[in-house]
Amino acid sequence: MAASSAFDLLITGGIVACCDEKGTAHAKGAVGIKDGRIAWVGDAEKLPADAAAAATVDAAGKLLAPGLVNAHCHLADSLFRGLVEDLELEDWLQVLWRAEGTILNEETNLLGARLGLAELALSGVTTVLDMFWFPETAAQATKKIGLRMMTGGFAFDLDGADGMPAADRLKHAEAFIERYKDDELVTPNAMVHGAYTSGTASMKAMHELAQAHGCNFHIHAAETRKENETVLAQHGARVVPLLEKLGMLGPDTLLAHAIHLDDADLKMVADSGTAVVHNPVSNLKLGSGFARVPEMLARGIPVGLGTDGAVSGNDIDMWLALRLAATMHRAVANKAGALSSKEALRMATLGSAQAMGMAAEIGSIETGKRADLMLLDLERPHAVPLFDPHSHLVYSACKGDVEDVWVGGRPVVAKGQLVNDDLGEILEQTRRLQPQVLASINGGD
Amino acid sequence: MAASSAFDLLITGGIVACCDEKGTAHAKGAVGIKDGRIAWVGDAEKLPADAAAAATVDAAGKLLAPGLVNAHCHLADSLFRGLVEDLELEDWLQVLWRAEGTILNEETNLLGARLGLAELALSGVTTVLDMFWFPETAAQATKKIGLRMMTGGFAFDLDGADGMPAADRLKHAEAFIERYKDDELVTPNAMVHGAYTSGTASMKAMHELAQAHGCNFHIHAAETRKENETVLAQHGARVVPLLEKLGMLGPDTLLAHAIHLDDADLKMVADSGTAVVHNPVSNLKLGSGFARVPEMLARGIPVGLGTDGAVSGNDIDMWLALRLAATMHRAVANKAGALSSKEALRMATLGSAQAMGMAAEIGSIETGKRADLMLLDLERPHAVPLFDPHSHLVYSACKGDVEDVWVGGRPVVAKGQLVNDDLGEILEQTRRLQPQVLASINGGD
Repeated sequence: MAASSAFDLLITGGIVACCDEKGTAHAKGAVGIKDGRIAWVGDAEKLPADAAAAATVDAAGKLLAPGLVNAHCHLADSLFRGLVEDLELEDWLQVLWRAEGTILNEETNLLGARLGLAELALSGVTTVLDMFWFPETAAQATKKIGLRMMTGGFAFDLDGADGMPAADRLKHAEAFIERYKDDELVTPNAMVHGAYTSGTASMKAMHELAQAHGCNFHIHAAETRKENETVLAQHGARVVPLLEKLGMLGPDTLLAHAIHLDDADLKMVADSGTAVVHNPVSNLKLGSGFARVPEMLARGIPVGLGTDGAVSGNDIDMWLALRLAATMHRAVANKAGALSSKEALRMATLGSAQAMGMAAEIGSIETGKRADLMLLDLERPHAVPLFDPHSHLVYSACKGDVEDVWVGGRPVVAKGQLVNDDLGEILEQTRRLQPQVLASINGGD
Repeated sequence: MAASSAFDLLITGGIVACCDEKGTAHAKGAVGIKDGRIAWVGDAEKLPADAAAAATVDAAGKLLAPGLVNAHCHLADSLFRGLVEDLELEDWLQVLWRAEGTILNEETNLLGARLGLAELALSGVTTVLDMFWFPETAAQATKKIGLRMMTGGFAFDLDGADGMPAADRLKHAEAFIERYKDDELVTPNAMVHGAYTSGTASMKAMHELAQAHGCNFHIHAAETRKENETVLAQHGARVVPLLEKLGMLGPDTLLAHAIHLDDADLKMVADSGTAVVHNPVSNLKLGSGFARVPEMLARGIPVGLGTDGAVSGNDIDMWLALRLAATMHRAVANKAGALSSKEALRMATLGSAQAMGMAAEIGSIETGKRADLMLLDLERPHAVPLFDPHSHLVYSACKGDVEDVWVGGRPVVAKGQLVNDDLGEILEQTRRLQPQVLASINGGD
C-alpha cells in the first residue's frame, strides 16, 4: 500500500467491481493510482484520512471495473467491415485476402488499426492481442491512442497481403521482438496464422522463436471441421494432435477458436497447460460452431475471450462477445448452469490476461497491477435496478455505457471521446477509402 | 403520393433502409410524413421541386429505418432485472413469481412499464407486444411515452401476481378489448400464459374471445422440454398438438419461443398459418435451447423477433436479439448460409409486424404505413465503412446509435432523450424500490 498522499489519481465514490478471483466488489469504493499502477483499492470510507491525490475523479453513481482484455483480433480488417457476407471461413478468406492484398500497405494498415483501436478504446477494452500484416503500424497506432497491445510477426507460407516473402517472416518476427521487448504498451509475441497456411518447418521455427524470447505464442487452431480435414490430409494429423506432435502446445501457447476438438484433443490441451481464446461472435457469424467452453473450464484450461476481426463481426464488441460467451453454451447444454456469469466475466478480463501470460499485470483491480480501468455510466434504463455489479457487467452493461477509460493510469477515453486520436479524421479517411475497398473484390471477377 | 406541399415532416438527405420485401434502399433518400403516415419515400433528388413541409429534419450522414418491432416482452419485469440468475425456466419462474407477487401493484407495475418502455424507445423500438399483469398500466405508460403496443388480458389459472381470481380473467380480457379497440397506439389482443398454467377451458375461452373480436392471440408454447413433458402428462399431448386439438392454431395465433418442436409440430404450425416469435437472448440465458428458425422460415412460417423480459435478458435489447437471430442458427447448422441477414432483419421488423397481424400498418418504410421510424447516427467507429445499410442494421448497428425515434410521425426520442417521459425520475423511483425487490425473495426463505 502506497503512502496515501502519493496518488497521482484517485477514482472514488463509485461501485467498484474488481473482477479478481474472489469477486471482490465495493458499493462505494475507491481506487488510488500511482506511477501507472493500482496503489490502493477498497471501501472509500476506509481511505486514510490524509489521503491526497494530484487529481480526483468523482465516480458516484458509476461503476468502475478493469478494462476488458480482447485476446484475439485483426484490427485493420475493420477497413473491410461488411464487405464479405454469409460465407463460411474458407470461401470467405479467399475473398477477404483478395481485398487485403489490393488495399493494404503501411499507410492503409495504420488507418485500419486506428479505426479498430478507436472502437476498442471507446468500448472499454484496454488490452488487445492483434494478429495482422504490418504489426509495426498497429504498434504505432496503439502507442498513439494509448492502449496496451500484444502483437508480432507471424508465419504464413502463402502469399501474404504485405508482400513479404515467406522466408523473411521469421526474421521479421524476431526483429519485432527485439524492437518492442522493453516497450511499456506493446508486448511482442510470435505467431503462426494456422496449420493450414504454413508448413511444419515455419511453424516450428516460429514457436522456437517465441520460446527463445520467453514470448507468448499464438495460432488459429481447429476453427472449422474443414481445417481439421485439410490439416489431416496435409500432415497426417488433425490440428491439435499435430501441434502436440510438433511440441508446440504448452503454457505459453494460445489457441484461437479451438472449436472442433474431440475429447482426446481437449485432454492434450488441458494436460499441456495450453490456453484457448474463445471468439463467439465470429464463430456464430461464420457458422463455425460452438467451442466446448464449459468442458474446457471444467478441465482447467485457461480460456480468454476475443472479438476476432470486424469482418466476421461486423463490429469488435467485447460486450457482445461476453454476453454470448455467458449464455450460448447454456442453450447448447440445455442447462442454465452450464456456465456461470462469473466464469464468463473472468474470460473477458483475467482469463484473457492469463491466456496471454499477462495475469500478473492486468485483468483485475488489484494492488500492484497496471491501472487499466473503465468507468461506466449507470444512468441508463438497462442499468437499474442493479443487484450485483459483476453480473451487471455480463448481462446488462454495453459499450455505450463506457464513459472514461484509463490505461496505466493515463486517460485514453474521457466522457466518451478519444483523448489521444481523432475519431472524426479516422472515419473520414476510412470513408474516402471505401470505394477502392469495394472495387478490390468487384474488379477481378 | 400526397401533394408535395402537404408534409407535416420531411426527413431528408440520409441513407434510407426501407426494410420492405424488396429490400429497397436509398443512398440519399427522403421520407415525407402526413397525418402520421408515410406519404412519400424515395431518392431525395426526386422530391417534387415544390416539396414543402411544416418541419424538416436533415438526415445527411445518418441512416433512417423503420422502428424495430418487439413481438414478445414482459415490460414491468424490468423491475426485477438481475434478481434471479443462472436457473432454468421452471425454477426461475418460482422465484420470479414470488417477487412479482410481493412487489407488483398498479403503481409499481406502471413504473416497471415506464422503465421497460424507456429502454425500448431509446433503442429504436416503436411497437411492442407486452404480456403482463395490469395491462391497463402498460397501456397508460405507452400512451404517455408514445410507443405503439399490443397487449391485453391473459388466462392464468394459478394465483397471479395481480391477485385477480382466475375466473375473472376472461371478463377482464374482454373489458380490455372493448376499452382499447379504437385506440391509435394500443391494439388489444387476448392471451394465455401457457398450456402448463391454464386448463383447457380457460385456454379455449380466451382463444374464442380473440376470434370473436378479430384480435391476435398470443401464448407461450414449447419453450422447454419440461414444458412439453408437463403438458403431455396433464393433457395427453405435447404443447403444439394440444393447441392443434383445441383448434387454437391459425393465422391469428402467435406462439412465443416454440423451441421444442418436432417435425410433426413444425408441420402443424406451418399448415395452420400460425406465427412464431423467436426470443434468442432469453432462450440462451435460460438454457432453453435453439428454436428451429431456419426450418420455420423454409416452411413459410411467419417468424417475428422478441426480447422477452429483462429478467431473462437482463436487458430488452432488440439489436442483441437481432444479431443473435442472424448468427446463432449458423453455428447450429455449421453453415454460414443457414439464415441470411435479410431474413434476420425481416424478423425484427416486418416479420414481427406480420406475426402480430399488423404488417399492413407497420414494419417497413412504405407509402401509406404508419410513420414509425428511427434515425441512426453513423459517426461511430463500428459504422464505417458501410457497404449495405440493411446488413449494417443486422451486424453493426446497436442501440447506442439511435438518435431520434418517431411513432406515427410524432417524436418519441430526440437526440437520444425521451421526449414524453422523464428517464431520471423513472430510474430514481426504481432505485428507491430496489431494497424491497431484493427483500421480496430473501424474506421468505
